[in-house]
Amino acid sequence: MAISARNRLEGAIQSVETDGIVAEVEIETDGGEVVTAVITKNSVDRLGLTEGDDVNAVIKATEVMIEDT
Amino acid sequence: MAISARNRLEGAIQSVETDGIVAEVEIETDGGEVVTAVITKNSVDRLGLTEGDDVNAVIKATEVMIEDT
Amino acid sequence: MAISARNRLEGAIQSVETDGIVAEVEIETDGGEVVTAVITKNSVDRLGLTEGDDVNAVIKATEVMIEDT
Amino acid sequence: MAISARNRLEGAIQSVETDGIVAEVEIETDGGEVVTAVITKNSVDRLGLTEGDDVNAVIKATEVMIEDT
Amino acid sequence: MAISARNRLEGAIQSVETDGIVAEVEIETDGGEVVTAVITKNSVDRLGLTEGDDVNAVIKATEVMIEDT
Amino acid sequence: MAISARNRLEGAIQSVETDGIVAEVEIETDGGEVVTAVITKNSVDRLGLTEGDDVNAVIKATEVMIEDT
Repeated sequence: MAISARNRLEGAIQSVETDGIVAEVEIETDGGEVVTAVITKNSVDRLGLTEGDDVNAVIKATEVMIEDT
Repeated sequence: MAISARNRLEGAIQSVETDGIVAEVEIETDGGEVVTAVITKNSVDRLGLTEGDDVNAVIKATEVMIEDT
Repeated sequence: MAISARNRLEGAIQSVETDGIVAEVEIETDGGEVVTAVITKNSVDRLGLTEGDDVNAVIKATEVMIEDT
Repeated sequence: MAISARNRLEGAIQSVETDGIVAEVEIETDGGEVVTAVITKNSVDRLGLTEGDDVNAVIKATEVMIEDT
Repeated sequence: MAISARNRLEGAIQSVETDGIVAEVEIETDGGEVVTAVITKNSVDRLGLTEGDDVNAVIKATEVMIEDT
Repeated sequence: MAISARNRLEGAIQSVETDGIVAEVEIETDGGEVVTAVITKNSVDRLGLTEGDDVNAVIKATEVMIEDT
């Protein structure tokens, strides 16, 4: 199944922290960058996310901003 | 100036396509991944974004989803 | 592949309108409601979306607001 | 009062779970689908949201993704 | 009707620019700040938005970032 | 450093409430309006945000909706 969201960064889960309704998941991408997601704990349980899992960080293009350096 | 958005992927602009109000910008991150942003043309002009510019792709953690593979 | 986004409304595409970078897609859900998505034209082409296709409207829970009536 | 967000799914609240700052609200739409929203507890209190209330799930079109099946 | 989005900035429309599917609307808030919204042209037409209209800029709290200065 | 997000409302922090992973920050803008942000506690700590700090509320234009009154 493909999704319209344009950004799919492959990587592995570095850490999962849950706290009531929400959870914070850190992913190290294959490119060596760390991407942080805040999702619901329900989704962590539904997907059975744990440290070391291979996952994609998925981001809709309209949610990406650009900062000049 | 620092911003609360948790994700800042460093890279360089690969392409900028503008079309009326919106613009699509592709960034190759230092990790070798391509991230696509849809922002306004006004922002492209304001920041003077062109191919080759060093930029950061900035993404709020609540906008990142996780897909198991 | 499963995604952390909590909302997946099954349905079929009613209409696809593209215009330069963006596209507006209307989906009639199996429950008879019409959901409108604004995605990029690139995603319409990549997924080959056309009228009548069976699709899911996918929405992250943090993007849903509630209005009392 | 009308709002520019394109998607308004009518339904009734199935459950409200609050936890500190955030709250998770599940809505069964008139079409029989369950939509989950993560909003602030403050908003739950301000709107006085409780199980059984008639509400609309409101979603901006730019936040809707499409998944082909 | 009340909506769970926490931020409602009252103001008046300064300008409306439409271009195919999307539209860019600038609002001067009662506090004298200019807020820019990108919505669909369909919503501009549906709400009949024109320069000078009294409107609210509505923003979900999870979409607001903070920048230290 | 400039960011593509179109909306930057200058102001000062009125209150910071943290709760596990998330935090709710209220900002009084120079125009006298109160804007609420939900960000991660990690960002509050990283930016060292406390009551009275001068900050900007930063909002991408695609996240702003319009309500007619």
